[in-house]
Amino acid sequence: MAQKIAIVGLGLVGGSIGMALRNWVAKNAERSGLQITGFNRSYERRREAERRGAVDKAYGNLASAVVDADLVVISVPVLAAREVLEEVAPLLAPGTVVTDTCSTKGKLMQWARELLPTTVQFVGGHPMAGGTGSIESARGDLFEKHPYAVVAPTNADQQAVSRVLWLVEAIGSEPYFVDADEHDVYVGAISHLPYLLSVGLMKQVSEGPGWAEISKFASTGFRDVSRLASGDPTMHRDICITNRETILRWLDGYLDTLRGLRDDLSNEQLDTESLFDTFSQAKQARDAWWDGVPVRKELDQEMSEITREATSGGMRRLFLGSLGQRSGPKSKP
Amino acid sequence: MAQKIAIVGLGLVGGSIGMALRNWVAKNAERSGLQITGFNRSYERRREAERRGAVDKAYGNLASAVVDADLVVISVPVLAAREVLEEVAPLLAPGTVVTDTCSTKGKLMQWARELLPTTVQFVGGHPMAGGTGSIESARGDLFEKHPYAVVAPTNADQQAVSRVLWLVEAIGSEPYFVDADEHDVYVGAISHLPYLLSVGLMKQVSEGPGWAEISKFASTGFRDVSRLASGDPTMHRDICITNRETILRWLDGYLDTLRGLRDDLSNEQLDTESLFDTFSQAKQARDAWWDGVPVRKELDQEMSEITREATSGGMRRLFLGSLGQRSGPKSKP
Repeated sequence: MAQKIAIVGLGLVGGSIGMALRNWVAKNAERSGLQITGFNRSYERRREAERRGAVDKAYGNLASAVVDADLVVISVPVLAAREVLEEVAPLLAPGTVVTDTCSTKGKLMQWARELLPTTVQFVGGHPMAGGTGSIESARGDLFEKHPYAVVAPTNADQQAVSRVLWLVEAIGSEPYFVDADEHDVYVGAISHLPYLLSVGLMKQVSEGPGWAEISKFASTGFRDVSRLASGDPTMHRDICITNRETILRWLDGYLDTLRGLRDDLSNEQLDTESLFDTFSQAKQARDAWWDGVPVRKELDQEMSEITREATSGGMRRLFLGSLGQRSGPKSKP
Repeated sequence: MAQKIAIVGLGLVGGSIGMALRNWVAKNAERSGLQITGFNRSYERRREAERRGAVDKAYGNLASAVVDADLVVISVPVLAAREVLEEVAPLLAPGTVVTDTCSTKGKLMQWARELLPTTVQFVGGHPMAGGTGSIESARGDLFEKHPYAVVAPTNADQQAVSRVLWLVEAIGSEPYFVDADEHDVYVGAISHLPYLLSVGLMKQVSEGPGWAEISKFASTGFRDVSRLASGDPTMHRDICITNRETILRWLDGYLDTLRGLRDDLSNEQLDTESLFDTFSQAKQARDAWWDGVPVRKELDQEMSEITREATSGGMRRLFLGSLGQRSGPKSKP
């Protein structure tokens, strides 16, 4: 574990990491010496991070935040992370471990190699959880039971990897080891492509005629498919810049798939059986994925029961014992 | 209000209507004479509907279910609804009102005109709520605070419209009056197009190489954008058959939009400012829509607080007073 952690960037993710660590300390009283500092340019966000207990102290000066830290967590959009690496490089004591929570890894691992001194170890990270909002939406359980990609350089120091693994598990996530390039291909499929679909949908329907009327009918289905479009534009711009080739490959494949669906649907002799098969296969694939996620499914079912209780105005007292438990898969070390 | 309601089709929507009506009766003791019957071909689903209290009695014979009903609610996929209309036409007493919960309206309103006797009134309906699953997932609060499209023929009898409006409000929904063609264009944008995007995404990523590994990293963003792909293939096949032209127009527009995004992204001189603007505009449009939905937003915020409480293992007792309230917009009568 670490003794002093500096979180650079107090947004939704950085703030939630601090709050999750605070929860961990509360459950591990003997480790109460853990110190958490934070850095953010905005005065308001520094105060909010302190108010929420995400950090012991938040600084507007990077050097003050990272001094004596044995673990530095960079939690800003990818392009800003490059600047942070450059700026912290001369400030870090030998033996410091640096990690990040950025959305893409290929370029970042390269920048860390180029910019950090060899006395400092870098191990990349990416919590597969998030959402819209900033420090005001931060919560200590944001990462609980969610996957967390850990990207260790081939020559990584085992102690540095252990320190990052400790962080991942302290905040309740499930670590998965993965190469930087694999990571970028994977998140291209399950995060960056879905974001662009969501943006495209929002652009298409809201810029067309009649949106004022149409939008009144939009409900849960639209809410879900459009949700990612509410994501941070800066973060997603940086993602597109640093993972462009991979995203373009996924997007081209997607355009082909959708054009295929379009052609099937426009065929004068509509093949309704084939249409049914396409929809059935998509359902099977989606259900199989979701069924293969027992921990998250359990959480979802519990949630829908809570919704039911809450909105039906039935029971007012909810005992949620099983939600406190943790279990789940763990990948190769 | 109605005295005897027959629900034809005991799936998620039909079953939830029955359960919602049961809740309404519980709150309106003086109306306890309301009788609810159901029809479903499957024995198991009939038993489940009775077990859940969605109906007083479920029949495997249409005539037994609809006899003496003053309101018949057809809750099956659109093409099956045509058969139901044909089959119930000779069974209904004069003055019976028939409504439906089908996903498309153009063809259905035409079939109702052609197939029902003039002594029977048809007023179309479409609750803008749903989800995956069947009668086992039915819940009495499924429609609460959600929009409900009401499609009345131009020559509609005011009493018939009132009876359907009573149903919509009894189950907690907000009625919006709309023409059949408008309805089909609107839901094409906010429901049918999003479904196809979701299917395309699921098809694209799950049929490509590496899905076994990639899927482990998929988290909440992917869950949301892919959710509609878990929808009922029969329902969606019927939607595509009965709303094909409209869906194709939306889909073509979407393909153009997405190709535009693709071209921007592949431009050798990537215009990062323009990319940022595109993402910002999509965010603004999405946030504006979501902010304009006060009732649902309130619900969502309450839910996220409940999640937080539940998963943080903090308070175990939740007082959810405000969720019982109802308020919201209502369109032209």
